Amino acid sequence: MKKSFGARTLLTALPVWCIGSYDADGRPNVMTVAWGGVCCSKPPSVTISLRKARHTYGNILEKMAYTVSVPSEQYVRQADYFGIASGRDVDKFEVSGLTPVRSELVDAPYVGEFPLILECRVIHHHEIGAHTQFIGEILDVKMDEEMVMEGDQPDIERIGPLIYSAHTGAYYRIGECIGKAFKIGRKQ
Amino acid sequence: MKKSFGARTLLTALPVWCIGSYDADGRPNVMTVAWGGVCCSKPPSVTISLRKARHTYGNILEKMAYTVSVPSEQYVRQADYFGIASGRDVDKFEVSGLTPVRSELVDAPYVGEFPLILECRVIHHHEIGAHTQFIGEILDVKMDEEMVMEGDQPDIERIGPLIYSAHTGAYYRIGECIGKAFKIGRKQ
Repeated sequence: MKKSFGARTLLTALPVWCIGSYDADGRPNVMTVAWGGVCCSKPPSVTISLRKARHTYGNILEKMAYTVSVPSEQYVRQADYFGIASGRDVDKFEVSGLTPVRSELVDAPYVGEFPLILECRVIHHHEIGAHTQFIGEILDVKMDEEMVMEGDQPDIERIGPLIYSAHTGAYYRIGECIGKAFKIGRKQ
Repeated sequence: MKKSFGARTLLTALPVWCIGSYDADGRPNVMTVAWGGVCCSKPPSVTISLRKARHTYGNILEKMAYTVSVPSEQYVRQADYFGIASGRDVDKFEVSGLTPVRSELVDAPYVGEFPLILECRVIHHHEIGAHTQFIGEILDVKMDEEMVMEGDQPDIERIGPLIYSAHTGAYYRIGECIGKAFKIGRKQ
């Protein structure tokens, strides 16, 4: 029996993306978001949503660029920290000991140690309400070579991305593969 | 050592959301998308991206409404099917044996058997390129009572949502919890 829980963002399995940006003085920052996703194939684009009060919000508007660094599960502690501290108060790269790498394509840094990186230039931004959506065209994807399968595809099992359970506030790892897409559903 | 893989949507862990809509004649349809995410807390909103050629695209524009039904892992076969077949050709609810339930809040059906449902009215739509983004305000969340934890939160372990590995084309289950958010990162 279904019960009503009201107008709330009660989703369960969300991404964990670390967003790299520079401020006006060129200081690197990184913050973790769960509110984002792929939004277009051509141009290849992702969307992230930020509150105006975030340090990263001003940085992205200033540079019209950001990176997405996808942490593997071994970096869960750092990814969580990037969502707790503010770049206004501390240099999160310095505190975490991770490396800001300057993108050669956009005016934003990425996390050198993380296995999967997107370099994005902002092509649209929309205010929705409490959050503003930044749509970033992916100019390049960079991966650690050992994370790549045949056919130049990212291997989810080697990358080991984190899954965020919003509201219950917990990070999960990826479990077993339970089916091939466009195949398992052919027979109903 | 990082290698460049070009301008592509090479993300790994994506959501599996089944989007319910009615066509102009009131026939229910459901399609699976991986390109979506939460995008605002106030109003509580989600975004999904669709190609114009999709049957669901016209349905949503007509009704300015959709639902998100989150399948649990036991429905991986049906969720995959909803992404393979087109509502132009078949009644996917009938073929899969699942139940279209009419939302009382928006002009769209949801999948009665799936554990977590969002009922959304479209508040914005943007053409990005090959895909159009539909931002839906969540008017209500419905859950099976046995999926809910203390504090009215969805229990990710009971719901058992699917994770989609794009490009390698596979579905994964959620694995173990590896840390509490806003806690594990406090100490660097």
